[in-house]
Order: sequence, then C-alpha cells, then structure tokens
Amino acid sequence: MNKPKEERSAISPRRGENYPEWYQQVIKAADLAEVSPVRGCMVIKPWGYAIWENIQAVLDRMFKETGHVNAYFPLLIPKSFLEKEAEHVEGFAKECAVVTHHRLEAGPDGKGLVPAGELEEPLIIRPTSETIIGASYAKWVQSYRDLPILVNQWANVMRWEMRTRMFLRTAEFLWQEGHTVHATAKEAMEETLKMLDVYSTFANDYMAMPVIKGEKTPGERFPGAVNTYTIEAMMQDRKALQAGTSHFLGQNFAKASEIKFLSAEGKEEIAWTTSWGVSTRLIGGLIMTHSDDDGLVLPPRLAPKHVVINPIFRNDDERKTVMEYCERLRRDLSELHFGEDRLGTTRLQVWLDDRDLRGGDKTWQHIKKGIPVRLEIGPRDIQNDSVFMGRRDLTPRDKKSVERGELLSTIVSTLNEIQDNLHHRALETRKANTKTIDTWNDFEEFFGKGGDEESTQGGFALSHWSADPADAAAIDAKLKPLKVTARCVPLDPVALGATDSGKCIFTGKPSKQRVIFAKAY
Amino acid sequence: MNKPKEERSAISPRRGENYPEWYQQVIKAADLAEVSPVRGCMVIKPWGYAIWENIQAVLDRMFKETGHVNAYFPLLIPKSFLEKEAEHVEGFAKECAVVTHHRLEAGPDGKGLVPAGELEEPLIIRPTSETIIGASYAKWVQSYRDLPILVNQWANVMRWEMRTRMFLRTAEFLWQEGHTVHATAKEAMEETLKMLDVYSTFANDYMAMPVIKGEKTPGERFPGAVNTYTIEAMMQDRKALQAGTSHFLGQNFAKASEIKFLSAEGKEEIAWTTSWGVSTRLIGGLIMTHSDDDGLVLPPRLAPKHVVINPIFRNDDERKTVMEYCERLRRDLSELHFGEDRLGTTRLQVWLDDRDLRGGDKTWQHIKKGIPVRLEIGPRDIQNDSVFMGRRDLTPRDKKSVERGELLSTIVSTLNEIQDNLHHRALETRKANTKTIDTWNDFEEFFGKGGDEESTQGGFALSHWSADPADAAAIDAKLKPLKVTARCVPLDPVALGATDSGKCIFTGKPSKQRVIFAKAY
Repeated sequence: MNKPKEERSAISPRRGENYPEWYQQVIKAADLAEVSPVRGCMVIKPWGYAIWENIQAVLDRMFKETGHVNAYFPLLIPKSFLEKEAEHVEGFAKECAVVTHHRLEAGPDGKGLVPAGELEEPLIIRPTSETIIGASYAKWVQSYRDLPILVNQWANVMRWEMRTRMFLRTAEFLWQEGHTVHATAKEAMEETLKMLDVYSTFANDYMAMPVIKGEKTPGERFPGAVNTYTIEAMMQDRKALQAGTSHFLGQNFAKASEIKFLSAEGKEEIAWTTSWGVSTRLIGGLIMTHSDDDGLVLPPRLAPKHVVINPIFRNDDERKTVMEYCERLRRDLSELHFGEDRLGTTRLQVWLDDRDLRGGDKTWQHIKKGIPVRLEIGPRDIQNDSVFMGRRDLTPRDKKSVERGELLSTIVSTLNEIQDNLHHRALETRKANTKTIDTWNDFEEFFGKGGDEESTQGGFALSHWSADPADAAAIDAKLKPLKVTARCVPLDPVALGATDSGKCIFTGKPSKQRVIFAKAY
Repeated sequence: MNKPKEERSAISPRRGENYPEWYQQVIKAADLAEVSPVRGCMVIKPWGYAIWENIQAVLDRMFKETGHVNAYFPLLIPKSFLEKEAEHVEGFAKECAVVTHHRLEAGPDGKGLVPAGELEEPLIIRPTSETIIGASYAKWVQSYRDLPILVNQWANVMRWEMRTRMFLRTAEFLWQEGHTVHATAKEAMEETLKMLDVYSTFANDYMAMPVIKGEKTPGERFPGAVNTYTIEAMMQDRKALQAGTSHFLGQNFAKASEIKFLSAEGKEEIAWTTSWGVSTRLIGGLIMTHSDDDGLVLPPRLAPKHVVINPIFRNDDERKTVMEYCERLRRDLSELHFGEDRLGTTRLQVWLDDRDLRGGDKTWQHIKKGIPVRLEIGPRDIQNDSVFMGRRDLTPRDKKSVERGELLSTIVSTLNEIQDNLHHRALETRKANTKTIDTWNDFEEFFGKGGDEESTQGGFALSHWSADPADAAAIDAKLKPLKVTARCVPLDPVALGATDSGKCIFTGKPSKQRVIFAKAY
C-alpha cells in the first residue's frame, strides 16, 4: 500500500523513525561522503568537500583578521613527546596510529610484502599537535619581543576511535588547530575567549547554527588544559554537539616543552599558551541542525551552489530555446554577489544542470543535495519570461512562478531570508527543548529514565550543580546510567534566563549558576 | 680583514662558494622552514607557508577553471592495495611509513609507553594515492554517464627518504594530486597534456620560472604509468629540477582497481586514468631560480607581501609624524589591485613594519625575505612628499626617491616589471647553459668528468638518443658515473632549436629527436 502523497519523503527512514540511520541516508543521498576500506576513515566526496572548503575560506579569513598566520608542522610525533605532559598522556597517548617501521620488503616466501626497518623510537600520527608544535615554539621564543605567537594549522589528525560515524567521529579527520604563545596569563585568556567568539560568530552567522558559549566542567576538559571553553549546539534529536573548543593551557604545555622567554626586565619567564580547534565534525552539525526528511538543507552562506537551474524540454527544438534562455539567466545571476570569502565578497554560485537525466530525477537530486534555490524553466515559462522557483526551506511542492526581472532583483534577499529562517528555526527548536530543572526526579524524567532511549533524548537541562571536586565522582555515577553529561557552564546565563542561584540537584549544596546537561554526540 | 663593502653579502656562503649550503642559509635567513625533531620532516614556518598558500590559491583556481573539483581520501592505505599494481609495488611500496599498532600502553615496568593492539593488516601512510582512490572510483563509476571523473586532492604524503633537503626532498611533504577517469584513451591523454599545460603556465606566469615541457624516457617514468610528462626547470647551479609531472596511466591502474563502466552500447569496458601533481618542492625551485647572495627573491605574483614600509624616526615627535604618513600610505596602497586569486584579482599586500627594531636591521630582514618593493620613509622624505624605494631585483644600494603620487600610479607596473625581469633573467641563464652536444667526448666534458663535481654542473645538454629499449642499460651505465640523467624528450623542440635528426651519442643509432640530459635534484 502506497503512503498518501504528503507522507512520502525522499529520505527513508525519516528523522522520527530512526534518527541515526536517517543521518547516514542524508549523507548518502547528498553524496557528501562514503566509508572507506580503511577502518574508521571516510572518503569526503566532492559535494561534502566543497562545503568544507567554504568553511575553511570563511574561518581562515576570520583567523587572519584576528592577527593569525598559518604554518605546517610534522604529521608524526615521537612517542617521547606525548609522554611529556602527564595529563595529556592519559588523554591522548592511548588509541592512536603507531608507526613502527619505515620499509616494506618481500615476504619470507617471496610473496607479498612485510614491514621491515624497525624504528628506534615509534612515531605517532598526531592526534593533536600541542607537543610537536611546542618543540618548535621553544626555539622560536627567546625574548618578550618574540611574543605573541599567533599560528594556526590546517591539517589531518588521527584518533583510533572504536565507534565511528561519518563526520561526527572518524579515525582520521580534517581540522584546524590554533596554537598561540603569550607573555601573560591575561593575554592568553583573552586569546582563548576571542577565538571562542570567532567560532560562535561563525556557527551563528554562517552555519545558521545557534550555539551556547560556555566553560567545560573539570571532568570534560581537554587533557592538560587549565580551562576549556566550548560552543554547544542542539541537534534536531535534542542531543548536544560540541562544535568547537578553545583551551587556556596555562603554563602546563609551556613547562613540558620549555617555552621560556626573557621579559623586558631581563627575567626568564615561562610562557602561557592556548589552543583551539574545529573540525569536519562541523559538517555533521550542519546536517543534523537543518536537514529534513527530504535530505540535506544547506545554509546559503556555506552552500557550494546557491542556485540550480533545471532546464525542461521535450524535443531538440525546445532544447535549443530553453538552453539559450537558461544559459543567459545563469550568466546574469552569476554577476550578482552573495556571501563572502577571503576578500569579503563573492559571486553567486549557479549550477546549470544540463545532464542528460529526467527533469524530475534532477529536481530530487537538487533537493537531496540541499541547494537553497531551485529554478525550473520550460518553454511555457520562457513565453512568460518567468521561472518556476522552489526554496529548500519550504516544502518540495511549495513552488511559485517568478518573473525573470523580479528574480534577479530579489534572489540575494531571498537567500538571506533562507539563511535567517534556518537560524530562526534552529533557535526555536533549542528554546522549545531547553528546560530549567530543579529536582533530580524531574531531571531523570526529562532524560527518559526507563523510557525508549532513542526517542526520549530530553534536550538541554539547565540545573544547579555543585562545583565541589569532592562530589565529581558521585555526580558522574548518577549521570552515567542516563548517558547524560555536563555540557558547559554558560558564559552568558542572562541570555538563557538562568541567572538565579540555588541548590545543586545532586548534592543539595549551594550553587551559584546553572550548568547545561544533555545527551551528546 | 674585512671584505670591501661591495663584496659583502647577506648570505654566507655565497652561491659560487657552496651552493647547497647557500640554499640552506637562504631558507634560514628568510624564515621559510626549519628541520623538525622527526627525521626527514620539516616545519614550514609562516613566511614559507604563506608562499604555499599563494601557490595553492592560484593552482586551485586553475584546476577549477579546467573543470576539476576537490575531494579527500584516507591518509592510510592497506598494505594489500599497494601490492595490486606490479610496477607500482616496485616503485612505491619500499621506503614508506608503516603503521602496525593502534594503541600505546604503559610499558612492562610501568614506565613509559609501548605500542600495543597490533593490526591484522599493516597500513601505509600514502606515498601517493592511486590505489586508495582507485578503490573509490571503482564504486563511483558504473556507466559512461559517470565519466569523466575530474578530482583533485590537496594532501600530505610521505616517502621515507634517506637523504633529505628542505622543500626539495623531505619524508613528509604537501602536494596536490589530480586523479581522473575517462571513457577513452584519447580523452585521458588530452587531460594529461592539459594539466601539463596548466603546470607550465603556472611555472612561467606566476613563479617566473621558465620550464621545458617534455616526456620522460621509459626509465624515468612514474611506476605504473604508460607515459609520464614533466616540466623541467634549470636552477642557478645549472642542475635540473623536475617541477611537476602528469601521467597517462593507460588502463594499468583501472585494471588493478577494477574501474569498469558500461558504454553507451551497453558493453563493459575498462576505464582510462591519469594522475598529476606538484608539491612544496616548487618552493625549492622558486628559491633556487631567483634568490641571490642577499637571500630570497620572490616573484611578486607569489609574494605574501608585495610592498614593505619601513618607518624611520629618531624620537617620539618624529615617530608620530612618520607613522601617520606611513599608515596613510599603507591604506592607499592597499586599495590597489595586483595579481590574482580565486576571484581573478586581489589587493596589493602591504606590510607596515612597525616593530621595535633598528631601521637598518629591518631593511636587511626585508631583503632576506625577498619582498619585491621596500619603502623607507623618514621626516625628510615626508617634507618632500616622497619615499625612498628599493627593488629586490636590483642591488640593495640601488635605491631612489619617488614622489608619493608617482609611487601610487606606478607601483603595479613596477611589480609587473620585477615579475618580468625575474623570468627574463632565469630564461637567459637557461639559454646560456643549454648546449646541443653531438659527441660523447663533448658530453663528458660538459658535465665535468674528472673536474670539481660541485662547480662543474654543466647545464642542459641537448643530445641525440636512441629510444631502443635494448640499449637502456648500457646508456644508464655510461650516464651513472657523471650523475647525469635523461630529463625529458622536449614536446616543443622548435622552441629549443633542436629539431634536427641525427645519431645517438651513446650507440650511434639513428635518432629522430634530441633529449635533454642534466644533473638533477
């Protein structure tokens, strides 16, 4: 039995039926990525990589505007480097790819190849680069005149994850890691928070993904950091996604790497460092914030193509007329400016899809790829000098005829409107699923204790929490069965209406501020 | 005893004294890169990386203009993949980084960390990605409608080199690798040569580095390729540098990876593939083509900064006046357009160097960093509304006063003139050191047999050569003591005045065309 038309969707299962499987199917339908023959690694396909290129272009410009430069450090880290910083060892030197040989030789039976040339010291594929970059910085920094050092690296990193999910958690992933050195704690802290702001601005203004800036509780800190700050986003299944982090590392790594400098007064001092990063995980966040049961929905400011033109014709005569009209429209649209890149502005990206496929098949591909605006143009439209327009923030059937001149004069504002709509919707979803919760009973119920795990994700619980380290283990033990973690202490509780003081819901001790709790990716 | 002033130079030793050491000192003085604690790997410092970013921006635009898109494939390749293509195994599966474990555990004595979690199949850090990309393409390609596939990847790769030299030959290096799939041999060959043209245009027009396009002789081919094409440049020590290669892979890799498609006639066919790449080695070529005894010389179109302003003052009063004037000039210059990036045009990049250093020290730093145009501005210049200008293609003392208005109206043409000068000089050097050589005796003498190896590099010898495979081993044996190799069979012998036929200087057999021989990096 067929479903009634309005219940059909391009992606099966739907979000409400099986969210994790829906996520995989959206990726497949949009042709973003695929699993690779190497366990836990993915292949980022052209459409997915184009989104990453747009993310890179905007962030790179923002990093440079805040005074940073790029550099590149080695992929491999000597084992002894990872052993330098005690907490860092615990956190990172565990599940990682270890290079032990530098040659392959013919096997003993003459067939196949076997590892040979064993290394004296094993090398680790970087899980993050604090230690190897620290070794360079120790050389670069001699005097206070050499500070600050404001460097970013775009790179691949590797963490041998057991359970992987495309974009969200893969063994190899692409990211940027900023590593800065400062003369004072104050400057290093300012840098840490400045970059958190850059991430927050990027998430809100480009990804149309509302985020909450906050500080991680001690148990959730980056290994070796003094303070870890985060931007936390709510996905459509009400789970949290840590979308970016900025770490104030104090003098921990500077001590381990011996980054010292002579102050203006001629005194040897230990420097203060920070690190901050976002990764291809952002694409996972993008998917889970906006996409729907028909596939990917891209915020226009990060879409590789803003507009797609679908020419409709039945014979060669029509083909000629339609293609000429479409090509002229493509040219005119491509002259317009939308969004921005390193130079602050860029051309509207228009795809005239002239592939030899059925028009309807193309339309569904365009929908599943998340292209913000679709134009269908056939002989009758041309007679009226108009096009048939669909918007990805509306339903597939919600299309309208637009006069050509009007299209050209309104397309940029339409794209901005779509961008704003997506942000607004995501913010409404978050607001609707954020609750102040003041008792342990309500907390358990919110996160669906005993209920169906997958369908009862809860949302963001704003609850009072005692910062007393003595209680950390007991609180963790209570949270673990619920699969809930402390996401962050919000930096701006006023915006969340969570400024009151109260009592810790776990211990009853006095608490000055609410913490966000959620299930998380 | 001090040398007379005109004999002093910023880099010691000079090129004529010790070319390899001069090369290292130029890199150090320009702050381009440094050795890392990991054997054979380098750290690319911000000034060096900024040059790579400019190289990337221009090439990426050229790739996209020729219809290519970017994607990303796994860093690690299963050992069995490298074993698939027989010649490829021979060429690549030798000196490479082998990952054998996926964990570090506390050592048996409780101290330190040791590799654990041995992998069932070792993984290789990609030395090049034909095999792993082929595995994806086998899935992507089903029908002739899926072709061509035109994909490029920007990535790090690793080859365990024994003798390394910064930028020219390092264990890890950055590169791009294009991998395309076509329905016919003809299309694949067109692609191969089209990308060779892209490389040649880039080398000439952006790097100001003249190159000769040619085909590699069988002994110098990429392992597994049917034909390898190259762009060969002459360095200032008259050695050749292979600056980029483009490979017609025939059906070799398509067979190994099973990249098959249904033709329009419904027949299963094996696809045709190409690959092409350039790397951070280009930066080595840039250095050795243009730099002089005072350090790096950058072609303006790839310089991270086109103009540097050096404010000169003796007290706080002068400081205020001078800095205001310089800041205004910086702003005005920054409004101008020079060169191009992905959008086809970009702003003039101006650095107002306000660091708290002596003016003379700064000037030498600017020279050693290769900045095309230097402006010195002091109170007296401001009175005349003029600046003191030095050009990196002239000597450090060859400076002149330029009226401010004239500077603004001529700076772009000055930069273009510098760009042209650098290309012209390099071309003259190559012409002066390229000889048609018709006897083995002259050949031996040209390459300094018995002479001082380092100072007698010869140059490019254009000599007749028999393509008979039966002679290959004997010819190699004659060339080896001279450390000379066949660089390429030029694609455009007319341009080199080498169109005559003759007799192979090694075998006396008839030869239709001259081959370029040289010592090489």
